[in-house]
Amino acid sequence: MNGEYCSVDEAAIPITDVGFIHADAAYDVVSASRGYIFRLQDHLQRFERSCHSFRLRNPYSAAQTSAILVRLAQLAGTREAYIWWCVTRGAMPEGRERGNPEAYQNCFYAFAIPYLFIADDAMRSRGLDLMVSRQYIRIPGRAVDPAAKNFHWMDMKLALFEARDRGGDFAVLCDADGYLTEAPGANIFLVEAGTIVTPDDGCLEGITRRTTLELAAELGLPARVEPVAAERLRSADEAFITSTAGGIMPVRSVDGVPLGAGGPGTETVRLHNLYWDKRWRGWLGTPVEFRC
Amino acid sequence: MNGEYCSVDEAAIPITDVGFIHADAAYDVVSASRGYIFRLQDHLQRFERSCHSFRLRNPYSAAQTSAILVRLAQLAGTREAYIWWCVTRGAMPEGRERGNPEAYQNCFYAFAIPYLFIADDAMRSRGLDLMVSRQYIRIPGRAVDPAAKNFHWMDMKLALFEARDRGGDFAVLCDADGYLTEAPGANIFLVEAGTIVTPDDGCLEGITRRTTLELAAELGLPARVEPVAAERLRSADEAFITSTAGGIMPVRSVDGVPLGAGGPGTETVRLHNLYWDKRWRGWLGTPVEFRC
Repeated sequence: MNGEYCSVDEAAIPITDVGFIHADAAYDVVSASRGYIFRLQDHLQRFERSCHSFRLRNPYSAAQTSAILVRLAQLAGTREAYIWWCVTRGAMPEGRERGNPEAYQNCFYAFAIPYLFIADDAMRSRGLDLMVSRQYIRIPGRAVDPAAKNFHWMDMKLALFEARDRGGDFAVLCDADGYLTEAPGANIFLVEAGTIVTPDDGCLEGITRRTTLELAAELGLPARVEPVAAERLRSADEAFITSTAGGIMPVRSVDGVPLGAGGPGTETVRLHNLYWDKRWRGWLGTPVEFRC
Repeated sequence: MNGEYCSVDEAAIPITDVGFIHADAAYDVVSASRGYIFRLQDHLQRFERSCHSFRLRNPYSAAQTSAILVRLAQLAGTREAYIWWCVTRGAMPEGRERGNPEAYQNCFYAFAIPYLFIADDAMRSRGLDLMVSRQYIRIPGRAVDPAAKNFHWMDMKLALFEARDRGGDFAVLCDADGYLTEAPGANIFLVEAGTIVTPDDGCLEGITRRTTLELAAELGLPARVEPVAAERLRSADEAFITSTAGGIMPVRSVDGVPLGAGGPGTETVRLHNLYWDKRWRGWLGTPVEFRC
């Protein structure tokens, strides 16, 4: 919290920080598995881009931020960690200065907790029951850029509640024209005749999404990044979601209709296994040293 | 803070409350002037509707909430107060329960500070220089309902920065089709040939907006609530914004071009004066008793 370390239960944000009252912040998340933080530099670079999009300044350099995140993982004392950080706009200045981004003192907050999966072990083994939201569209990029990681989640939260009401586990949202964008905290992929496909727009450029495209190339799977109408998801052979909070997670049904054989798909499982095999061997990992 | 009173400088939100990390909350604001809180019941009713839209439950009844807000004004010790409150979703439950709104323990937070104007005295005397945002549109209702008061402000904050870069004081945002929606924390009105006009959609149903429509009727001014293309604002005779944070505030120019004679307009001034005359006499006011 602005340079101090404390228990996550004591960590708290001033109520007048506009990072709270106006969701005026950028954030990012890394995960550590078997003591290795995955693609830390890539997350740090994305975070700086998110801050830039929102005219926020991280008070710490990338190297300082990296040191803080590693220190948090050490203090949390777990090799399986979910490490979250943000820069908020800070307290509101007076009058006309509210329109001046230079008049704010931006604040840095971060926490580490045990590794968090979007879907628990049972859900990932059987595959997720995914619902395409009927009630909500994703906030468009012309309003708030989804490629800059931000707190604007109400559309995604309400879509998640809607999905559960309809008997599903998880939601995916479309844009105003019916094209897939993203799921709450996750990117969406489908497999069509051996090709993996993911939306090109209206979504976060997830690090796990990028990793998945690299792993597909390694496996010789063709991939396309393009506009994807929601109907294509319903008729896909396989589908999965990707997130720092869980890696590559299979989908078994869409809107109550099973995909393919109705469990995790063949290519999904290959990508999933390769992802964890490599991560567990420290691939692109920053080791966290623990005193024993 | 969840039932405890403290100094606003000590008031802080747990970092893991999704009201912070996911802007997952509803809020409202009332103002007190000369010791009277304006239209408290109307704000409380709107707040309950906002909570309902987002599937949040206020842990306090309307009567309890009202008592808390009055107590905050008393403790703040000012007859000119800005009193803010919210209900957040609370801490995140485990796994699949994240999709269950019943699995969250919603939290109540509120604060009172000295009365806050969007525009200071000098700006209100001369009239605001308003800029119609070119870079950002307002978040559409199909994503996050703007009629339910919420923390999703990044589009409005960035439009405010853009306005200042262009030499203005304040911003107004359009929807994807170029129709006016709202300004950051304020509704927009124009005066065309003696008729006052305000957008019907894509905006908060402001209590000051409603009050303005009532005052217009009292003054015999015709009013229309309808879709308003941004071009109409640029060619209006007068314009003003309305907000709990400042009442009725005149606009003197739009996109750098003066409106009418270039200062606060005649009808704007009549509405402004009637608003404050009535408020200062306790109109629709809840008195706050202070021990002297």
